[in-house]
Amino acid sequence: MASSNLRYGEGVSREIGMDLQNLGARSVCVMTDRNLSRLPPVEVVLESLEQSGVGFSVYDSVRVEPTDTSFKHAISFAKSESFDAFVAVGGGSVIDTCKAANLYACHPDADFLDFVNAPIGLGKPVSRVLKPLIAVPTTAGTGSETTGVAIFDFEPLKAKTGIASRALRPVLGIVDPKHTLSMPERVAANSGFDVLCHALESYTALPYNQRRPRPLNPLHRPAYQGSNPISDVWSRQALHVVAKYMKRAVRDPDDLEARSNMHLASVFAGIGFGNAGVHLCHGMSYPISGNVKTHSAKGYSVEHPLLPHGLSVILTSPAVFNFTAPICPERHLEAAEILGADTRRVKREDAGPVLANTLRQFLFELQVDDGLGAVGFSKDDIPTLVKGTIPQERVTKLSPRQHTEDDLAQLFEASMKLY
Amino acid sequence: MASSNLRYGEGVSREIGMDLQNLGARSVCVMTDRNLSRLPPVEVVLESLEQSGVGFSVYDSVRVEPTDTSFKHAISFAKSESFDAFVAVGGGSVIDTCKAANLYACHPDADFLDFVNAPIGLGKPVSRVLKPLIAVPTTAGTGSETTGVAIFDFEPLKAKTGIASRALRPVLGIVDPKHTLSMPERVAANSGFDVLCHALESYTALPYNQRRPRPLNPLHRPAYQGSNPISDVWSRQALHVVAKYMKRAVRDPDDLEARSNMHLASVFAGIGFGNAGVHLCHGMSYPISGNVKTHSAKGYSVEHPLLPHGLSVILTSPAVFNFTAPICPERHLEAAEILGADTRRVKREDAGPVLANTLRQFLFELQVDDGLGAVGFSKDDIPTLVKGTIPQERVTKLSPRQHTEDDLAQLFEASMKLY
Repeated sequence: MASSNLRYGEGVSREIGMDLQNLGARSVCVMTDRNLSRLPPVEVVLESLEQSGVGFSVYDSVRVEPTDTSFKHAISFAKSESFDAFVAVGGGSVIDTCKAANLYACHPDADFLDFVNAPIGLGKPVSRVLKPLIAVPTTAGTGSETTGVAIFDFEPLKAKTGIASRALRPVLGIVDPKHTLSMPERVAANSGFDVLCHALESYTALPYNQRRPRPLNPLHRPAYQGSNPISDVWSRQALHVVAKYMKRAVRDPDDLEARSNMHLASVFAGIGFGNAGVHLCHGMSYPISGNVKTHSAKGYSVEHPLLPHGLSVILTSPAVFNFTAPICPERHLEAAEILGADTRRVKREDAGPVLANTLRQFLFELQVDDGLGAVGFSKDDIPTLVKGTIPQERVTKLSPRQHTEDDLAQLFEASMKLY
Repeated sequence: MASSNLRYGEGVSREIGMDLQNLGARSVCVMTDRNLSRLPPVEVVLESLEQSGVGFSVYDSVRVEPTDTSFKHAISFAKSESFDAFVAVGGGSVIDTCKAANLYACHPDADFLDFVNAPIGLGKPVSRVLKPLIAVPTTAGTGSETTGVAIFDFEPLKAKTGIASRALRPVLGIVDPKHTLSMPERVAANSGFDVLCHALESYTALPYNQRRPRPLNPLHRPAYQGSNPISDVWSRQALHVVAKYMKRAVRDPDDLEARSNMHLASVFAGIGFGNAGVHLCHGMSYPISGNVKTHSAKGYSVEHPLLPHGLSVILTSPAVFNFTAPICPERHLEAAEILGADTRRVKREDAGPVLANTLRQFLFELQVDDGLGAVGFSKDDIPTLVKGTIPQERVTKLSPRQHTEDDLAQLFEASMKLY
């Protein structure tokens, strides 16, 4: 089990200038996106850097839902000066882009595909120590501040993939609860769905002692270990917080208590899935978001078609957990109960439908689009979606239930309409 | 929040030879104590080192409840060869001794008191990176595998003190559930009481946002931050496991499920208190164990008078939590409820007596000696005990309730007899 150092509390991001001084940094690369660059979380960080006299340059062209092209753009910027530290202020897109920029700036001769997960890339291990990266998350979703993973859309294959190495992990995550007050309603909803899927997938992931083959050397253990007694604590805790606070956090942007708690839940679920892994919702989401055609996401000011990550993972969740429940019905029932279902008289064999219905109700109340059909997909897209899921074996193999391409096709089909 | 990397599972300690190879180690200092040196946890580790061809020397003279003298003895051994890694196989005494040996072997010119906590020592910050230390805990109590703290008896003052620095933290904790099957019944009980106190003290510690003065630079934040939303998760989880499994783990040494769960609880509570801190039970325990005269602990084969650490912390717990309850009665009631009390009709102002009685019942069922009186102390010792608590401000200041010397005297007096 491993995670970044974390600092939590109102106003803690004001100390970041001193943190960078303490790290001996003189020239810092600050990454964010265009919308955030005018908002308080970035203002506070830049003010602190100025007060501490630490030099910095700001890159505010991070693409929401980044691609190989947008990663490379950020990498060029990171290589353009000799930065000795990185700061990411934003959601998962920003933090992941900053991780990649740091990685390739420290490996100026590497090809872009060298470190990208196999089979799309070469999956080379990272052996150098990178520059310190401090992450200041502004959404309550990604958990990227706690993990060594950076995800992007690989445009040539229209599929998401990523880079996964403990070396990418931020040295410090600064979780300042007021930062999430900037999130628009739909950003709060979609990033919250990511938290919910992180928690549900890591809690139901293949148990750590059932992963095969078992690596002969502990060095070759994957970052994603399968569910285990330590990740379980985090996943379950995150689920409790989502059940208690998510609806409030989405509906009232000024509900500091609810938004702070969702911010923490995103950290909790991040530690949980960062150790245990995710499985089918995430694996299937990558071709979903990679093949978006025209959907323009409400509440996001971007100029390209966009299916927010949290929405792309949650849309298949009723079908996925209905499918995985027979393998570990107790955990699925426990999740349904935490999310508000009365499971006292439910039989184990009904765990799947009960959790699926609980999720549908939860999504309906949060006004989620009515399935993949409502965001522009049709049955004709299923073969493409299935084909795009195959290379995601790094995550899909953590599904507790083995699955064929036919199973995947049925899961996509069952996710076309939710209500 | 911070903790070591952890690896959990049956047989994982067999991989330690490879871990050390992966770290590039060629000459490893293995520390343990005399009793353990003949038991399976040490055998497995040495066998793995031999198989991997990693050179090593074994130091098996760790003193149970170490002192400055025993620390110095171990430090001499660590300095005698140029070790490039350390392995501690044992309980808190072994892991703490190994941390100190590593620290001073890496600072050969330092005086022993340089890094010892002020006011007893100079409390100098550790700026060098130490050699990697892998901890293999064999008791379910200390949590030392997750922390940067090493505790010892400072004989000139008859008081426990310690060294606290993140630099001491093991790079890896290997939690192998079968290791705790070697624990004698009383070792299981006493180390379990340490877990219980870690959980209760960290859960009721002064909240992180009420610590004063607030350091101006984050570098000067103490290791013990006060209770916070992340440590709370661990402390509460540890308490649940203690409530469910401790009695079984003590009574039946072959109950692998119960002993494994207590082993994990010790990790959970270790992460909790390693971030939040402990307070009065621990602060008051240091003069208690430092002033033991004749008590010879059942089940421990050592030749010196010994009051096991877990026993020295738990004996004051009913009095302490009765005293602290008025400041945060909800948390005290929640703890009582987790430990089995029916709190539905209890008033907030009765939280103290209810938790105290719940603890007394729990201790009685686990056949704990009847208070400080039963382990050799009398009222005449109270001034000495109070005087010995004063230098423990590093921990006692995390008590949620401020206290005078008179309060401490009353707490010691109330702990003379429990039943």
